[in-house]
Amino acid sequence: MRPSKRAADEMRSVTLERGYSRHAEGSCLVKFGETHVLCTASLEERVPPWLRGQNRGWVTAEYGMLPRATGERMRREATAGKQSGRTQEIQRLIGRSLRAVVNLEALGERQITVDCDVIQADGGTRTASITGAWVALNDCLSWMKARDMVRDNVLTDHIAAISCGIYAGTPVIDLDYLEDSDAETDANFVMTGAGGIVEIQGTAEGAPFSRDEFNSLLDLASAGITRLVDLQKMAIS
Amino acid sequence: MRPSKRAADEMRSVTLERGYSRHAEGSCLVKFGETHVLCTASLEERVPPWLRGQNRGWVTAEYGMLPRATGERMRREATAGKQSGRTQEIQRLIGRSLRAVVNLEALGERQITVDCDVIQADGGTRTASITGAWVALNDCLSWMKARDMVRDNVLTDHIAAISCGIYAGTPVIDLDYLEDSDAETDANFVMTGAGGIVEIQGTAEGAPFSRDEFNSLLDLASAGITRLVDLQKMAIS
Amino acid sequence: MRPSKRAADEMRSVTLERGYSRHAEGSCLVKFGETHVLCTASLEERVPPWLRGQNRGWVTAEYGMLPRATGERMRREATAGKQSGRTQEIQRLIGRSLRAVVNLEALGERQITVDCDVIQADGGTRTASITGAWVALNDCLSWMKARDMVRDNVLTDHIAAISCGIYAGTPVIDLDYLEDSDAETDANFVMTGAGGIVEIQGTAEGAPFSRDEFNSLLDLASAGITRLVDLQKMAIS
Amino acid sequence: MRPSKRAADEMRSVTLERGYSRHAEGSCLVKFGETHVLCTASLEERVPPWLRGQNRGWVTAEYGMLPRATGERMRREATAGKQSGRTQEIQRLIGRSLRAVVNLEALGERQITVDCDVIQADGGTRTASITGAWVALNDCLSWMKARDMVRDNVLTDHIAAISCGIYAGTPVIDLDYLEDSDAETDANFVMTGAGGIVEIQGTAEGAPFSRDEFNSLLDLASAGITRLVDLQKMAIS
Amino acid sequence: MRPSKRAADEMRSVTLERGYSRHAEGSCLVKFGETHVLCTASLEERVPPWLRGQNRGWVTAEYGMLPRATGERMRREATAGKQSGRTQEIQRLIGRSLRAVVNLEALGERQITVDCDVIQADGGTRTASITGAWVALNDCLSWMKARDMVRDNVLTDHIAAISCGIYAGTPVIDLDYLEDSDAETDANFVMTGAGGIVEIQGTAEGAPFSRDEFNSLLDLASAGITRLVDLQKMAIS
Amino acid sequence: MRPSKRAADEMRSVTLERGYSRHAEGSCLVKFGETHVLCTASLEERVPPWLRGQNRGWVTAEYGMLPRATGERMRREATAGKQSGRTQEIQRLIGRSLRAVVNLEALGERQITVDCDVIQADGGTRTASITGAWVALNDCLSWMKARDMVRDNVLTDHIAAISCGIYAGTPVIDLDYLEDSDAETDANFVMTGAGGIVEIQGTAEGAPFSRDEFNSLLDLASAGITRLVDLQKMAIS
Repeated sequence: MRPSKRAADEMRSVTLERGYSRHAEGSCLVKFGETHVLCTASLEERVPPWLRGQNRGWVTAEYGMLPRATGERMRREATAGKQSGRTQEIQRLIGRSLRAVVNLEALGERQITVDCDVIQADGGTRTASITGAWVALNDCLSWMKARDMVRDNVLTDHIAAISCGIYAGTPVIDLDYLEDSDAETDANFVMTGAGGIVEIQGTAEGAPFSRDEFNSLLDLASAGITRLVDLQKMAIS
Repeated sequence: MRPSKRAADEMRSVTLERGYSRHAEGSCLVKFGETHVLCTASLEERVPPWLRGQNRGWVTAEYGMLPRATGERMRREATAGKQSGRTQEIQRLIGRSLRAVVNLEALGERQITVDCDVIQADGGTRTASITGAWVALNDCLSWMKARDMVRDNVLTDHIAAISCGIYAGTPVIDLDYLEDSDAETDANFVMTGAGGIVEIQGTAEGAPFSRDEFNSLLDLASAGITRLVDLQKMAIS
Repeated sequence: MRPSKRAADEMRSVTLERGYSRHAEGSCLVKFGETHVLCTASLEERVPPWLRGQNRGWVTAEYGMLPRATGERMRREATAGKQSGRTQEIQRLIGRSLRAVVNLEALGERQITVDCDVIQADGGTRTASITGAWVALNDCLSWMKARDMVRDNVLTDHIAAISCGIYAGTPVIDLDYLEDSDAETDANFVMTGAGGIVEIQGTAEGAPFSRDEFNSLLDLASAGITRLVDLQKMAIS
Repeated sequence: MRPSKRAADEMRSVTLERGYSRHAEGSCLVKFGETHVLCTASLEERVPPWLRGQNRGWVTAEYGMLPRATGERMRREATAGKQSGRTQEIQRLIGRSLRAVVNLEALGERQITVDCDVIQADGGTRTASITGAWVALNDCLSWMKARDMVRDNVLTDHIAAISCGIYAGTPVIDLDYLEDSDAETDANFVMTGAGGIVEIQGTAEGAPFSRDEFNSLLDLASAGITRLVDLQKMAIS
Repeated sequence: MRPSKRAADEMRSVTLERGYSRHAEGSCLVKFGETHVLCTASLEERVPPWLRGQNRGWVTAEYGMLPRATGERMRREATAGKQSGRTQEIQRLIGRSLRAVVNLEALGERQITVDCDVIQADGGTRTASITGAWVALNDCLSWMKARDMVRDNVLTDHIAAISCGIYAGTPVIDLDYLEDSDAETDANFVMTGAGGIVEIQGTAEGAPFSRDEFNSLLDLASAGITRLVDLQKMAIS
Repeated sequence: MRPSKRAADEMRSVTLERGYSRHAEGSCLVKFGETHVLCTASLEERVPPWLRGQNRGWVTAEYGMLPRATGERMRREATAGKQSGRTQEIQRLIGRSLRAVVNLEALGERQITVDCDVIQADGGTRTASITGAWVALNDCLSWMKARDMVRDNVLTDHIAAISCGIYAGTPVIDLDYLEDSDAETDANFVMTGAGGIVEIQGTAEGAPFSRDEFNSLLDLASAGITRLVDLQKMAIS
């Protein structure tokens, strides 16, 4: 029995609220249960220095947590003077995941920065971020299309992410904080709407895991991401 | 005529939503029109090193803005590696304002940190922060009282804040971003429920202002803060 | 009775020594009693990036304290790796105050940086800084006029500053360190030669203050600043 | 045909040179072809603050590259003032991987830091680091055993790592820099001597990859890591 | 002919003004011509962590320049976020030089920090700093003796410093900025009252120098330092 | 008797291994006994901003130590967030020393950065660095000559360095760590192939030293550097 009382293959309630920010070109407040992340997509008419003059754009991401998004208050990174290794790891993952479904040539020499800020955390902030970031990015591109800045071909597919893990010997999907703290194995999967795998990160927290165990996590993830992509489709329709 | 079409002495719609965060001991999402700030109060059972062993507590504040809280995306302070001078000025002001109505001896050797994070900005983020921070702090103290950690005497009064300014020659209250950008004079007032003044900050943005002009700003502020304190009372009742 | 034995409306002995630095285009060693600040004005033939190409100049200020300017040695900010919030607050105030009496268009596309470095501190370093900075700035502009770089119309008025506070229940002017540490209310006023108000910063250190109390501080400040402006006039004549 | 002319399942020549450093308690210069990493294990008789008093030790890792380990000189991180996100990601991975085969209770309240410094880079620096770090750690523990500080049970298994990828449509093992730059998919695997999986990181650099493709990478990795563990056994015998 | 019109063996006018700071336990404003350095000695009743419990004290130094001490304004190190390599080199030299004549056991478990802040620079700031720092340190120790904190034996000798260089082919003493900029060789000497050498730093700015040339610089320095020590004796008597 | 059992004028075994790095334009692994430093010379087709457009090049150096190059592990400077004062002092010395024998005009508008990274330390890392850096620089220039980028006249002479000190009352050459820790006086000498002096740094660690003592150190150094230059000549022939 999971602490959340959910079935092994049952995700938390997921909502995707578009247009949460009045300023951003695209935005989405994504909730995976009690994990709430505000994703905003910001357009800039210039690219990083190393990309200039190549007729290609760039999509990048930044990630942050409000200090009291967590059970215990965490030190504000702006006060600490730098982003933690964990923060950098996550924002690099979000950026890579989004770029996997973006045609950077079709974007033109512009940059879109997707900020994922965790308002409240209860496990799975990186997978919620990726799933919501796609919606914010999609809305930013719609905003650009409405102004004839780009055509339909910038976004090549959906992208969504889910965590799976082995909890008390059983493979389960979408771990909340309590489950995550006790899981023996923790894995994050990023996949496209077409079912292609973009990123796999699996870590043994306790004992090493076997190939069979890993395959059962991948099974759960495939089903979950299909469901998340459906929710994205409903949200943007 | 103000760009916001409000009367000179008309504040924006103000809401104070308590309990917004599931983790924090006290929290409040405060809205002054389109300015939205999440205030959380976090309790720690220890005080800063310079205060140890004095049987007194401490209340402090930190302030931040999400990168796309503003019309143009601002660089994340965690990436820049430090808080800006403006950020530090504001969080010092919030902390001082709260401490003006806290009996630090009655708090005991503990620290409460109130984080004010601007989710969306449209002028007046510091005054909204102070007004909402008081509610979060009050709820944190109620949480402590329910656990017999403190008595009723920690908070000695309400505290709230409002901006006033001279716009197109006329003294007006609660400037939004558009009004603030064009105001000749900009002033922030922090006052207690009993009407005592805790902080005055007045700045001539264009021409210097006269004593009479300053007095009319103070008149507007007194009335506005009375109204804000009423809203706080309703919110916590 | 004030610890300094001064009357309530009696400022410390103030001196303004011009040309203290052989290198700077303008300089002034200002003393408010035992508070000594060296102000130097440095001219650069370029403006900050955000101001380029607008045919306007910029005046800015930086503030620092020698480590043993104070009763106890303070950590050098260059060693700490950053300026404190207090330092940034003060240098922003000095810069704003000076710009209130500068015609930036008449200055041309140049920047003047006024450095205010506290050699010895005994309260009131920010007000001494502003008062002395105006003299250094004025001399820098005279230096430029002598080289036909600008005309007479860059500086539109004098600017000077003084602190007032409520000490042992009595409003007093120009608090030294001892008085400042015990004052219930502390306020800084920046005013022009014509009597216009440029900046007001009032803070209740203990109990909140009333409007009447604040008005008596403003009375003291007006008289004090008139006297400081007279001293500036004598110094530059 | 791979640029390296190696067969798809052919690793580069791997050497593990123990005792390279005269100062460290354990050390190993590991070479995967032209990728050379110096691993040193340093023992300290204290643990990080958050672990004190728990009768457990800690194993951690740090990673660095000499500025000209790469084809183009990279900026020294000590000059840049911080470790890059990539560096932090890699050193966290090395540390996690080592801890997966360490009995921290048996280590006692001590810390071992394994430094992995890349002398020369040609792809696969993180997998070479993990493979060599295990040898340095093993020698450090032998050094401790010889002094009766620990018993035989600290290290529970071998740990080694290898990269696999899809190059020109074919799954290949142990990519060098040239192959890595052009690979469509890049994956790193960390496994124990017993064949348990400790970490999987797979990333689509170009098109998403399928589950079948991923399985063929896992096949290659399993065989490769078996070979690396054999080399470790030979090295320490 | 030197630009300064001084004879080859003629130092600038040197003054040592004691008691310049009202707060510091010892202080000295030292002038070598137009080079002015304020030296303050600050006593702390604790030593750095690595020295605790050894019944010995520590003497250290910090060095800084006001931004407009020089002909062109230099960026403030507190703004840059760190001390330059040059600053660190100089303050390490000052500290080493002072410690060469201090009996750290006789000082007891205390630290004296001598701050050398350059108010105005015209070459030779490090040698002026060392020469003035000794006076400030001596006064700090007198202050301590007057309070029975130490005895007479802490300071074992005088210490002073002078620069010499080869200018236009001729060995000269005490170079000012103009001479220093054009000198082929630049050397700094630190010597005790008894004539012992504590530090020699010689650098060829243009062509390498010969042993004979170096010996003539050392001759000049010996005479100059004898003179500086006489001035120190007069200053403290 | 020296701890190393070497005669007073006997250097450690010195080797200069060229071409250690496959990527750098020039490289040399230099060993002074157990002190091992990897020197790489990296060519860039641009100069620092302050040198642009002057038809001159630049040669600079950076220095680092692997964390466990020393007997006790030292904190990684990339983690500490800055280079120590000692590191900066050494890299400035290496750069100055190399530039003393480089014709920067003949180099053209390019920069060569020589990185000196200490793989293992046993005293004398700065002198080994300078001696090895010259070989790496020479090979970088040969690489450029082979591509007709420069002619023969860039390097005007050899440069090498050695430390001398007074150990147990006797002047000795090339101190290892143990000797250096106990030496009364420590001096570093940098000289050209023609015997010209480029840099002298002498420091009294205990009692001040006399002129005679210093002369005997200089005698030892001259002989030692002649020997090092011979070794450089053999290495590059």
